[in-house]
Amino acid sequence: MEELVQFELTKEFVDRFQQALDERDQAFITESLQGVKAADISALLYEFNSEESKYVLDLLPVEIQAEIIIDLDTDTRVKFLKIYQSAELTRIVNTLHSDDVADILNEQPVKTREEVLSGLDAELRTQVTELLRYEENVAGGLMAKELIKVRDHWTVVQCIDEVRKQAENVDKFYAVYVVDDNDFLVGRVSLKDLVLSDARKVVSDLCEKDIVTVETYFSDLEVADIMRKYDLESVPVINVRGQLVGRITIDDVVDVITEQAEEDRQLMTGISVDIEEDDSVWRNTRARLPWLLIGIVGGLMNAKFMGLFEAELARITAIAFFTPLIQATGGNVGIQSSSVIVQSLANPGFVYDGLWQRLVKVFLVAILNGLFLSTLVYGANVLLFSEYRLSMVVSIALISVVIFASFIGTITPLILNRFGFNPALASGPFITTTNDLLGLTIYFLTVHLLL
Amino acid sequence: MEELVQFELTKEFVDRFQQALDERDQAFITESLQGVKAADISALLYEFNSEESKYVLDLLPVEIQAEIIIDLDTDTRVKFLKIYQSAELTRIVNTLHSDDVADILNEQPVKTREEVLSGLDAELRTQVTELLRYEENVAGGLMAKELIKVRDHWTVVQCIDEVRKQAENVDKFYAVYVVDDNDFLVGRVSLKDLVLSDARKVVSDLCEKDIVTVETYFSDLEVADIMRKYDLESVPVINVRGQLVGRITIDDVVDVITEQAEEDRQLMTGISVDIEEDDSVWRNTRARLPWLLIGIVGGLMNAKFMGLFEAELARITAIAFFTPLIQATGGNVGIQSSSVIVQSLANPGFVYDGLWQRLVKVFLVAILNGLFLSTLVYGANVLLFSEYRLSMVVSIALISVVIFASFIGTITPLILNRFGFNPALASGPFITTTNDLLGLTIYFLTVHLLL
Repeated sequence: MEELVQFELTKEFVDRFQQALDERDQAFITESLQGVKAADISALLYEFNSEESKYVLDLLPVEIQAEIIIDLDTDTRVKFLKIYQSAELTRIVNTLHSDDVADILNEQPVKTREEVLSGLDAELRTQVTELLRYEENVAGGLMAKELIKVRDHWTVVQCIDEVRKQAENVDKFYAVYVVDDNDFLVGRVSLKDLVLSDARKVVSDLCEKDIVTVETYFSDLEVADIMRKYDLESVPVINVRGQLVGRITIDDVVDVITEQAEEDRQLMTGISVDIEEDDSVWRNTRARLPWLLIGIVGGLMNAKFMGLFEAELARITAIAFFTPLIQATGGNVGIQSSSVIVQSLANPGFVYDGLWQRLVKVFLVAILNGLFLSTLVYGANVLLFSEYRLSMVVSIALISVVIFASFIGTITPLILNRFGFNPALASGPFITTTNDLLGLTIYFLTVHLLL
Repeated sequence: MEELVQFELTKEFVDRFQQALDERDQAFITESLQGVKAADISALLYEFNSEESKYVLDLLPVEIQAEIIIDLDTDTRVKFLKIYQSAELTRIVNTLHSDDVADILNEQPVKTREEVLSGLDAELRTQVTELLRYEENVAGGLMAKELIKVRDHWTVVQCIDEVRKQAENVDKFYAVYVVDDNDFLVGRVSLKDLVLSDARKVVSDLCEKDIVTVETYFSDLEVADIMRKYDLESVPVINVRGQLVGRITIDDVVDVITEQAEEDRQLMTGISVDIEEDDSVWRNTRARLPWLLIGIVGGLMNAKFMGLFEAELARITAIAFFTPLIQATGGNVGIQSSSVIVQSLANPGFVYDGLWQRLVKVFLVAILNGLFLSTLVYGANVLLFSEYRLSMVVSIALISVVIFASFIGTITPLILNRFGFNPALASGPFITTTNDLLGLTIYFLTVHLLL
């Protein structure tokens, strides 16, 4: 415990480190990074440019360099690795696991990919080549080839012997997989059970056979759901024939879950590409424009539409006062409705059965909310503006908007999901803008008919 | 593998199961749940009422009952366990780990909690009593007491012997912790290293000492960040003196991450309590009302505010056409800005340093976006309405709104975070409503001054 280095990234330290970099002060850099964990060093590298970062990395052992590179986020890594020669990169990734190597190579241009691949150790090359065949967002692209397997007819003592040999290449292992002579998965045995059992027993009598597996083509979200549901720390991946081809560990799935939450948030807030606060002003500006433009186009359509009712507006100016109220409520109701649906779609047990019951329920909730809000608004309007007829019209429009917006908010994520899009899109710009226009249309039609 | 039961929750099966429940057909129920995993059975139970669910559970082995109950979400579990006697509950939770027992007891009324606690096995009772002292959202409340520890002066063979004994009570174990005679944490050794090492070695020479730990008072989000950052599958929990008191495993942290993402979404979409689609109409209605009410109050204030400019509106009706455009853009800019900040606050390396640089950058991005949008809107307005003067006023108001909304969207989550609130609140109802009012104020002031 006394050796535990608590590393904190203070402004003072970053400044001192920058100075050491400027002066090429190797002694300071090596000493201050002594015993610091790779994840902490990669946090530090976000502060410096690619050349400086590479200067730091070159002073460290190659295994640490590899860990740091794996810890970087994708964008930063792609940019950073541009200054590496293929030969340098090969030396570094040779120390990594097959799934990490495949991730890095997937991000590289074809030429670099081929050069690095041809320089890898034979076994790793075979494994990585196989992994590169899979899309990144399916189980095959998520799995690692490194795993520990034993044959079903071996004895416990043979197995422990084999585990000793294989364990060299696997640093985190959770389970020993049992396969038959053709690599078909038979089951799993924990190291604990191997250690605690009679050495002469045959492993197929010992292993758990009723285990959860995923197939190579399962999507990463399916894998995450399955591992979360059954509380698994690792899951074996089998091909369509049932042969064991890899394993996925929980830490990869934690990344999938985090990225999904991030993606949902970005869809909901309308920032179009992966953007971080410390990106450049220009990149930040460009990332925001698309949603803003959709809003602007919607706003101009709103303006043009209201222009059609210029006569009514000129006659009773107060009509205009209530457009923000109608639009804000329509928008809020729409977002709430789609958010509830997005959430139930995220549950593994979700079924499309009972669409009609669902819509009836949405309708009932909308009527209750609508009635309550309309009554309140009617009372408030009479008090604030003493315009009985206009107040009535506003309240009628409001209840209609609540009902329509609930319907659109409910149906849109369901449709998006059916056609394979992320349903969280429904809380994003298109729907918000559509709801704005819808609210205005309903309001002015009501005004036109009743006032 | 042939024994793997693939369980799917079809409407047919649920209907058949309901029939079996109505007829109290024990044979069908027991047979159809044979070999089905607890997580799948708990999904099934969401379809039936508490009495029916309990009838099913009572037919299953007590360990499976316990697993199913732990798999339920909190709301459902609290409701479901109301029909249990304390004695029944005691028998079930006695088979669980200390952290799960503590979670369940935390949800129970004091009387039940005390009754169950007093009925637990002595060792489990001591462990659970200690865990109940901690808040649920700190490391102490997240940890389990079950772990495997050895003394630092023991030999490898002594350790393996002890692991054999202790492993009985721990079903997933990742690491063996090494402590001194006063329970101070010395380090960690993997089972792999124990198995692969010379049996006569002393464990303190073998164990990894530079390990990451968390203290009992760390918040659950801090624990999640640390485990994610260092890719840990389990982390030891120490008290302020440095003594080992428990361990947290990655599956608990997956739950924390998932719940946090869910909470953020709910704050952003303004649904006030934990609500699911299959809750009752009335519960759904109530959960949505608070945000809608904030929107309504904002809308009424908007209306009253626009009333102040009735004279201008009566003179030039077209002023009203552009309020939706101004408000939508202000809202979008505000949400984008706060979302970028919320995201960087979620990064463990976030520092408050450089607030001024940050604001200058936000200001630059806002000016660029604002200039681009204003120019576009000016062009469009001249084409659509041929009103040069009004178009100019709209564009000036638009650029001001973009700048102000960026500022508010940036500063609000920072302030919320400083005072210990969830910064995602900034994307929620209050800010949206404030931005609406702000947009309108800026627009009408500009109109008043320039038109």
